[in-house]
Amino acid sequence: MTKSSSVDLVTQTDQKVEQLIIQSVKEKFPTHRFIGEESVAAGESCVLTDAPTWIIDPIDGTTNFVHAFPFVAVSIGFSVNKQVEFGVVFSCLEDKMFTARRGKGAFCNGEPLQVSDQEDIKQSIIATEFGSSRDPDAVDRIFSSLRNVLCIPVHGVRGAGTAAINMCLVASGCVEAYYEIGIHVWDIAAGSLIVSEAGGVLMDVDGGPLDLMSRRIVAANSRTIAERIVREIDAFGPPRDDEPLRR
Amino acid sequence: MTKSSSVDLVTQTDQKVEQLIIQSVKEKFPTHRFIGEESVAAGESCVLTDAPTWIIDPIDGTTNFVHAFPFVAVSIGFSVNKQVEFGVVFSCLEDKMFTARRGKGAFCNGEPLQVSDQEDIKQSIIATEFGSSRDPDAVDRIFSSLRNVLCIPVHGVRGAGTAAINMCLVASGCVEAYYEIGIHVWDIAAGSLIVSEAGGVLMDVDGGPLDLMSRRIVAANSRTIAERIVREIDAFGPPRDDEPLRR
Repeated sequence: MTKSSSVDLVTQTDQKVEQLIIQSVKEKFPTHRFIGEESVAAGESCVLTDAPTWIIDPIDGTTNFVHAFPFVAVSIGFSVNKQVEFGVVFSCLEDKMFTARRGKGAFCNGEPLQVSDQEDIKQSIIATEFGSSRDPDAVDRIFSSLRNVLCIPVHGVRGAGTAAINMCLVASGCVEAYYEIGIHVWDIAAGSLIVSEAGGVLMDVDGGPLDLMSRRIVAANSRTIAERIVREIDAFGPPRDDEPLRR
Repeated sequence: MTKSSSVDLVTQTDQKVEQLIIQSVKEKFPTHRFIGEESVAAGESCVLTDAPTWIIDPIDGTTNFVHAFPFVAVSIGFSVNKQVEFGVVFSCLEDKMFTARRGKGAFCNGEPLQVSDQEDIKQSIIATEFGSSRDPDAVDRIFSSLRNVLCIPVHGVRGAGTAAINMCLVASGCVEAYYEIGIHVWDIAAGSLIVSEAGGVLMDVDGGPLDLMSRRIVAANSRTIAERIVREIDAFGPPRDDEPLRR
């Protein structure tokens, strides 16, 4: 089925995986709150409070999943006082379990992760995505930013087709930075902690502090690279995840 | 080190792998000819004749290799009378061995491959790359084509960072089509046979027959999808691989 546009896909599997996760957590923590991609699509509220909250993307990369393109992830972040305390991204087809707990480092299948130490943007690979909006103004800005970044020039631009895995690629040192406008809190909650615990930095696409609900992110190996990317981004602001009138 | 531009990379490993392959083949087939990416970079001729010829890319996805981005391939095609007779692409980090022999089908680790049966472009994923040229006119045309394709709209655009693996993704049914301008014969010789033996079609970006030396390709699951992509491509012609004056 489709959601916000003809290219924003959802499957029964997304819904079943989310139900499975929420039900099994609820059994152990009946007072905790949830922000799940498919629950929100079904009309649940999407407001991040100080309460313990599980932020869940049952399948990040649904389009990849539908096409058997080999990057598909389950992403689960857990926040208290609006701060992510731990995050897990499971890249199913790669069989890689990325984990991070605040102040305790980030790991892939138990091995510690460290971002790249490359601070020369011209020696970097940058990850981003086209997203699922086909609104002409948004597409204009996405292409303009992408062209600016490519022609810095950087070594290359890549995109796994999932925000969660793109962020794990930053944490693993395979790409120096990832940026995107249009993602949602469930795409980035877990990944943001994995990046910062691997030594990376997070910011808004305008260079300000990251706001998990703003649908905009730059995740990079260093402040130098992040700020260099920010200079090239033609920023815009899609409706926030916690905008009450967005639906 | 760099080759044609500051983002066209080569490592000692590329050169060593190519030497290893050529030496071991030469011991068994001393009269055969070779077209190898690094040999051509070192000044060897790049002309496809009727003679039995091994067409070798020792590392397709060198930029990925340098950054540990997880798509790296060895590509070997074998041609006689200018026709590819067999092709092998080894996706090293996925541990997938793609093979095809003309008229005998295409396989991944021994399992038969079949392209996607999706003929609706709007339900498709398309693979392409930005390439290593940063010439403004080329970049203009690459972005113009990409935007046209994205806004058909298609489900998504992806790129593994290697032509050989992009073609194996077509053969595997994970993407409906791959197109690119700027690739070389060693990037596509093996992959082209893997695609056609998996039931796919190959053509030039202008809709004419594929010319392995033209540095342009559309590889798709079907003629319908290939011709739809061709309509969106703002074609240009980089110097041919067999252009005597290109160096």
